[in-house]
Amino acid sequence: MRHRIWLRTVSTVLNPKMRSHTYIDTLGSARIMARVLDGKALAKEIKAELKIKIHNWVSSGQRAPSLRCIIVGEDPASHTYVKNKIAAAIEIGIEAQTLKYDENLTEEALITAIELLNEDTTVDGILVQLPLPNNIDERRVCNAVAPEKDVDGFHITNVGQLCLDMPTIVPATALAVIEMLKRFKIETFGRNAVVVGRSKNVGLPIAMMLHSDKNHDSGLGMDATVTVCHRYTPPELLQQHCRNADIIVTATGVPNLIKADMIKPGATVIDVGITRITDEQGKTKLVGDVDYDEVVKVAGAVTPVPGGVGPMTVAMLMHNTFQAAQKIWQQ
Amino acid sequence: MRHRIWLRTVSTVLNPKMRSHTYIDTLGSARIMARVLDGKALAKEIKAELKIKIHNWVSSGQRAPSLRCIIVGEDPASHTYVKNKIAAAIEIGIEAQTLKYDENLTEEALITAIELLNEDTTVDGILVQLPLPNNIDERRVCNAVAPEKDVDGFHITNVGQLCLDMPTIVPATALAVIEMLKRFKIETFGRNAVVVGRSKNVGLPIAMMLHSDKNHDSGLGMDATVTVCHRYTPPELLQQHCRNADIIVTATGVPNLIKADMIKPGATVIDVGITRITDEQGKTKLVGDVDYDEVVKVAGAVTPVPGGVGPMTVAMLMHNTFQAAQKIWQQ
Repeated sequence: MRHRIWLRTVSTVLNPKMRSHTYIDTLGSARIMARVLDGKALAKEIKAELKIKIHNWVSSGQRAPSLRCIIVGEDPASHTYVKNKIAAAIEIGIEAQTLKYDENLTEEALITAIELLNEDTTVDGILVQLPLPNNIDERRVCNAVAPEKDVDGFHITNVGQLCLDMPTIVPATALAVIEMLKRFKIETFGRNAVVVGRSKNVGLPIAMMLHSDKNHDSGLGMDATVTVCHRYTPPELLQQHCRNADIIVTATGVPNLIKADMIKPGATVIDVGITRITDEQGKTKLVGDVDYDEVVKVAGAVTPVPGGVGPMTVAMLMHNTFQAAQKIWQQ
Repeated sequence: MRHRIWLRTVSTVLNPKMRSHTYIDTLGSARIMARVLDGKALAKEIKAELKIKIHNWVSSGQRAPSLRCIIVGEDPASHTYVKNKIAAAIEIGIEAQTLKYDENLTEEALITAIELLNEDTTVDGILVQLPLPNNIDERRVCNAVAPEKDVDGFHITNVGQLCLDMPTIVPATALAVIEMLKRFKIETFGRNAVVVGRSKNVGLPIAMMLHSDKNHDSGLGMDATVTVCHRYTPPELLQQHCRNADIIVTATGVPNLIKADMIKPGATVIDVGITRITDEQGKTKLVGDVDYDEVVKVAGAVTPVPGGVGPMTVAMLMHNTFQAAQKIWQQ
């Protein structure tokens, strides 16, 4: 992977499989298209690394790390996500099971189920797939998971630790973005970054790590100057901030929000958005927040949807689960 | 106070005491100087309000709210701060005492002292004056204070709740800034704001409230677009962000960092910095981060140092103490 990055211009020639290439624009001049940050390939690499580490862990006499995913109701997307997480876990040697509940489950019953898992010494990671049915208070449920088993990083204590730059469990999607910036060697120190979207599970933790001090205990700080934009950022202000940004991370779920004329040439664009749309032919497909086909002509690097942050999120959840298992064992 | 704000241009004429006035610039044209956001007067107003509320609370049969300030060592500035806090508390009817310890106090002994106050049902608020001697881990000490008595808002749980927009105890300086914006009717919704400084006790909680959703449970969200700048923001980038900002909050402790040519005409500038400097005559004086004499000619509103955020911080600490007392009573 590193090889690819440092030899970008050369590898474009040497390695035709690499998805960075020239195109001829309408005036006939050749331009270099953005480097595509292949999250699928990177996730595969990270999972392979984890698989070896977990193998060594088990070989040294430890119990395999274990994960429990709780799902309430029948939302098909949620079931797909959980299925992918369980499959990834099993693939790399994490013992994983799903606990499926009817959508009529009460909040108290769900919390009791979580408390049983908290006490279960054979369980390292607990994940409650969101969203939950309307009658259940998600915040209360997130806080019911024992902080040391909270592999989603949504517990108040884990949020507090993240915001104080302390070692903690970081929400997987946010960690995926930071890990991609690191592994693809996107410089963040002193750079100007924009995070679009202020959700507590995604936008906020990303902004937190991007602007924080690298020398603090968590080691996750990226020392960028960071602007958080959101639904009440006027369009012209959003455009202005994006145009000045070296790095844009967008996590809104609004297709085509980020257009080519909002990108500084050469900037890095990380697309966390994922929305299922129906095209003119009546086919459904997944798209991000970014007008990909045009942005790829201006940006220096861009993540595709699908195949960008999505698979990396699953890989970082596996990272979190193994981290939880190690930490619980140390206690 | 409202009267003053809405009739600003009129009151400049009607009320010669109001510190907004015209000056003649070097080309001879008259300009309106910034409105001075008088933190001292506002703090007095807020303390008077609290005094009435506490009087009513006690009249209804409740015990007076109580505050304990712990100070370790002989730092003169810290002793002055604590003295001011205790005086303000007593003035408005809060029962307040200082616990003074030698600088050789061990971390364990300090934590034991805190735990005794945690268990003391006659104590509502506990404050440990920072900085602590080098042999003591400040983070551990902050987390030793019971979250419901943590009137500084530094406990991990309170930080987590703040970052999740939940009702909590907010660090007094950050709350002072937000309260000043509210009471002086500075519009924040959809506006472009810059926070200079990323400290966990000041810059971070200010940025958090400024960018958050007003409709969330805390009710403290200001819905601004927020950029966090810090020591690794290149000077030209800091200048660029500040020049585009409707609101600048600076909390760095670097005198004269924010100059007039960095201010958009009419912008609001909140100066949280406070540094003791020695002038050419050998006199010491307190200054903020802002080149006040020049900025006041460009900005629309500005806080002075001293007399701006400083006194408001003390007032908001009193607010936090009364809030803690009420909440503990409800439990």
